[in-house]
Amino acid sequence: MSWACPRQVPPLLGKHQLLHPLDQSLGRHVVASCGPMGSAAYKPSDLLRLKRSQLKVRFCTNESQKSREDLVGMLRRLGFDISEGEVTAPAPATCLILKERGLRPHLLIHDGVRSEFDQIDTSNPNCVVIADAREGFSYQNMNKAFQVLMELENPVLLSLGKGRYYKETSGLMLDVGPYMKALEYACGIEAEVVGKPSPEFFKSALREMGLEAHQVGQLVLKHVRGGSY
Amino acid sequence: MSWACPRQVPPLLGKHQLLHPLDQSLGRHVVASCGPMGSAAYKPSDLLRLKRSQLKVRFCTNESQKSREDLVGMLRRLGFDISEGEVTAPAPATCLILKERGLRPHLLIHDGVRSEFDQIDTSNPNCVVIADAREGFSYQNMNKAFQVLMELENPVLLSLGKGRYYKETSGLMLDVGPYMKALEYACGIEAEVVGKPSPEFFKSALREMGLEAHQVGQLVLKHVRGGSY
Repeated sequence: MSWACPRQVPPLLGKHQLLHPLDQSLGRHVVASCGPMGSAAYKPSDLLRLKRSQLKVRFCTNESQKSREDLVGMLRRLGFDISEGEVTAPAPATCLILKERGLRPHLLIHDGVRSEFDQIDTSNPNCVVIADAREGFSYQNMNKAFQVLMELENPVLLSLGKGRYYKETSGLMLDVGPYMKALEYACGIEAEVVGKPSPEFFKSALREMGLEAHQVGQLVLKHVRGGSY
Repeated sequence: MSWACPRQVPPLLGKHQLLHPLDQSLGRHVVASCGPMGSAAYKPSDLLRLKRSQLKVRFCTNESQKSREDLVGMLRRLGFDISEGEVTAPAPATCLILKERGLRPHLLIHDGVRSEFDQIDTSNPNCVVIADAREGFSYQNMNKAFQVLMELENPVLLSLGKGRYYKETSGLMLDVGPYMKALEYACGIEAEVVGKPSPEFFKSALREMGLEAHQVGQLVLKHVRGGSY
């Protein structure tokens, strides 16, 4: 299975991307991911058409201001036929990593996504998790995250995405990436990115689809990277 | 003239450093800079001893939360015999650059240093100047600086220092460097650093002393870098 560019697959809302096996005519599965282009470019009927096809569809998002429940609720209100189980998002992927590695995070995240971490032990933190916290990126909160990292013998920083910025109707907005870079520089460490464009994130989406990736192509990475600026 | 490490020269307060011709016995001037070690390590009598010697003395600081007037006032209240004209600081050095290059800054700085920019035209900004703004590094203020840079054809970011952090009695505090890195990453640019450890900054201090640097040694750079973390 290889990754390839989408053909005639319109993009979805904001930070969200479609992921689906696109073309079986090559004798192997080809998985496509299309970049985000804003809500106007994608209609509920397009998704319906995809779902009625032979194609398996999954939604990959770097959304980290909302829980999957809230995200799906918003998309459903917009007329999209999407369920929570079809969504691959950084917050639940991060929770899996935290549990696997026995990590207890100090959370610097948006309140909207906090419910995804309800089952996570945050006492006596031994790592920091940052996500697009918007106004939560105050000096005080950034300094607290920095101090937690500096107190650790082996500082671990998990970042939900590394996007530079995104566009809203009010203008361009700083994403989590710049704040990840700030903490990396302050502490002299390298963050672990959970989300697009990490190939591991797409592979985890494929695993959730019961598929396996054997190759990750450059074209789709370019598109995916483009999608997250 | 070369740069060398200090010998038996105690350090000054916080971010401030002494700069003085130390040793003429080598047949050429040797300029020394000593790293900061906290106020307890340096006494007003030490400075008096230096000033009474044959050595020219100048104070180099990355202080960017206070104007030179406020800084000198604080040091004088602590008993140090220092005047404003003996201090080389990033804010006045930045003002010179702005005037020379016809730059009108959007300022993301601490209110305490704002008076240094009183004579600077800040209308219709064509660059961004950041300094250690502490609580001024809100998401809203960072995003505004980012938006200003993104609207420029040739974005110019001047940073008063690039320190990672500094120590206060309340603990470690993020310095301007991490926020400089955040804007660099968000905009895909490289900032121009005004302040230690930039050799240009030390050379400007030497020019103010009527001296000229012919060589910058590694040892002092190591010490100076160590001083600004």
